[in-house]
Amino acid sequence: MKIEYELLKTEKNSKARLGKIKTNYGTVLTPMFMPVGTKATVKGLSVEEVKETGAGIILANTYHLWLRPGEDLIEKAGGLHKFMNYDGPILTDSGGFQVFSLVKSKKKDITEEGVHFKSHIDGKDLFLTPEKSIQIQNKLDSDIAMSFDECPPATASYEYLKNSVERTIRWAKRGKDVHNNPNQALFGIVQGGVYPDLRRYSAEETVKLDFDGFSIGGVANDNESKEDMYKEIDYSIPYLPKDKVRYLMGVGDPIDIIEGVIRGVDIFDCVLPTRIARHGQAFTRYGKINLNNAKYKEDFTSIDNTCDCYTCKNYTKAYIRHLLNSKEMLGGRLLSIHNIRFLIRLTEELREAIKEDRILEYKEEFIKNYK
Amino acid sequence: MKIEYELLKTEKNSKARLGKIKTNYGTVLTPMFMPVGTKATVKGLSVEEVKETGAGIILANTYHLWLRPGEDLIEKAGGLHKFMNYDGPILTDSGGFQVFSLVKSKKKDITEEGVHFKSHIDGKDLFLTPEKSIQIQNKLDSDIAMSFDECPPATASYEYLKNSVERTIRWAKRGKDVHNNPNQALFGIVQGGVYPDLRRYSAEETVKLDFDGFSIGGVANDNESKEDMYKEIDYSIPYLPKDKVRYLMGVGDPIDIIEGVIRGVDIFDCVLPTRIARHGQAFTRYGKINLNNAKYKEDFTSIDNTCDCYTCKNYTKAYIRHLLNSKEMLGGRLLSIHNIRFLIRLTEELREAIKEDRILEYKEEFIKNYK
Repeated sequence: MKIEYELLKTEKNSKARLGKIKTNYGTVLTPMFMPVGTKATVKGLSVEEVKETGAGIILANTYHLWLRPGEDLIEKAGGLHKFMNYDGPILTDSGGFQVFSLVKSKKKDITEEGVHFKSHIDGKDLFLTPEKSIQIQNKLDSDIAMSFDECPPATASYEYLKNSVERTIRWAKRGKDVHNNPNQALFGIVQGGVYPDLRRYSAEETVKLDFDGFSIGGVANDNESKEDMYKEIDYSIPYLPKDKVRYLMGVGDPIDIIEGVIRGVDIFDCVLPTRIARHGQAFTRYGKINLNNAKYKEDFTSIDNTCDCYTCKNYTKAYIRHLLNSKEMLGGRLLSIHNIRFLIRLTEELREAIKEDRILEYKEEFIKNYK
Repeated sequence: MKIEYELLKTEKNSKARLGKIKTNYGTVLTPMFMPVGTKATVKGLSVEEVKETGAGIILANTYHLWLRPGEDLIEKAGGLHKFMNYDGPILTDSGGFQVFSLVKSKKKDITEEGVHFKSHIDGKDLFLTPEKSIQIQNKLDSDIAMSFDECPPATASYEYLKNSVERTIRWAKRGKDVHNNPNQALFGIVQGGVYPDLRRYSAEETVKLDFDGFSIGGVANDNESKEDMYKEIDYSIPYLPKDKVRYLMGVGDPIDIIEGVIRGVDIFDCVLPTRIARHGQAFTRYGKINLNNAKYKEDFTSIDNTCDCYTCKNYTKAYIRHLLNSKEMLGGRLLSIHNIRFLIRLTEELREAIKEDRILEYKEEFIKNYK
């Protein structure tokens, strides 16, 4: 089967939704944060550790896996779940974002057919099309595949974005036409930058193509302000069907997650928790802290005494600081576990707040502490 | 209490011993391999993973911990067990080996009082004495501390080694005199290079000082042949008391472990399993293999189908190769788990072979396969 989404409740004072996604690899509740396992591994963590954070769906990157080890190898392994030994649900992105961000702009050429660009690994000429992206994802055998879209900066010119949105809709249709995996859902992506009428147009046309879920793309990929970013969500959500999942791509800042949920978003993903972990940073209720800081040298308390993660239950700031200072791998790993759990726990709390119709109070309280 | 060693059995056809060491952090059986947690972490692994390999005692390095984060900080944390969250027994070395090997020879000056040298981190002038080494270890609060010895190359001149052995005995006594931790055992170290009479002299004089256990040092730290190395053990063992633990320092090659056990050694340590793991190598019954090798690209079998480690139960060679190829941390971690388990399992099998008086057959069978 493909996924089945069930809307359980809409919060009284906002658009926040409590929902449930049934997949072939278990049922998850929404709102939910998806950790990113770029190259078929959530950096530094075992799948057991990922699960212990409470994670449901994890995300893997089609672009990276296409280049290495290749979708054919993963297909031979029995699909991505078996290859990486993860028995929970997996979402794959389309590769579009990586092509448009990883690959230097001079080295890519966007045509109606697809995108010509050079591999970031060895400079080899590559060509990714909407069809190819879906075919790769079909072989990866993820639970949710994403349509191949263009990801221009949100504040690109109206003219540019209008053409881009139209092309992305044509690409979405082309991808859908070749999609051929009965156990894989396919999501459409709403683009349109900061322009309300383009967001609406993109949403309405994408919805017409009847995808299994919808994502809001092209958000927070530019220098747009937080206000603009939230508006991009507001411009898109009203035109998405209530009975389908809504996914805000690439967003993982705690406050942005809260703002997204209040605006009606169900799922999120971001490399932020693992990336900042590798630089020694940890989320706390009071904002991010940097464990490299000398003030933690003799701090024999956990990162957050209210946190229930493996790291906080077992390790002190002083020890983690020592690991970071000694360039020991375990440091980034312990912080990754904590940071992922922090975001997952945030979404758990948001679900409780939705149940109890107090999400605006929750937000106010959270923001008051989080600097 | 300090440790208590009990000799359970000596094998019929060799000097191999089955024994038991009672510590404040649990009882372990010997022969046994100790994984190395240089900087208060077995590289890349959590303490749970270390325990899951079957490890009993782990080893931490006094030199590294003295420099970073410092013994006073670890004492404030409540000792090494608490600092690193390991509730099994810990052995600390004396720092001697690191001073003599890590620190370039030009940069060190050995006097009767101790060793002047420059930190390998920042070039700072440091001075390590037998007393200082023990005082640091007292604060680290490991279960077993080692005497501070000189580690000259095994094939240094007779004259040099004779003087060195005599100094090491004087150093051992000085260290013992200041040792002041009622919960920590203290081991003496037998040196003497490849010279039988120096090994005997070193052993006899060290035994007179009445340590809680004895180690054979200065082995495999030079270009000496395997035969010479085994002789160094043979020259030392007969002069060590039967009712004390015997520890062969820095040895982790599977065949050397077997040869050591047959010669009467009880415990071993080595960075080999984790170091080769980080380079993509894995122990197998048929010798070491390198997972970077292209021939494993589509090998969807485990490293060793008879291995019971976490890695072999869950992951294929193709996936591990992908992780190594993608420079993903999980690769070295999975191989470290496998390699440590391989050596621990080897010692488990050696214990069974001792029980059944078939250790020579075991060795023959092992060597036949292991290339």
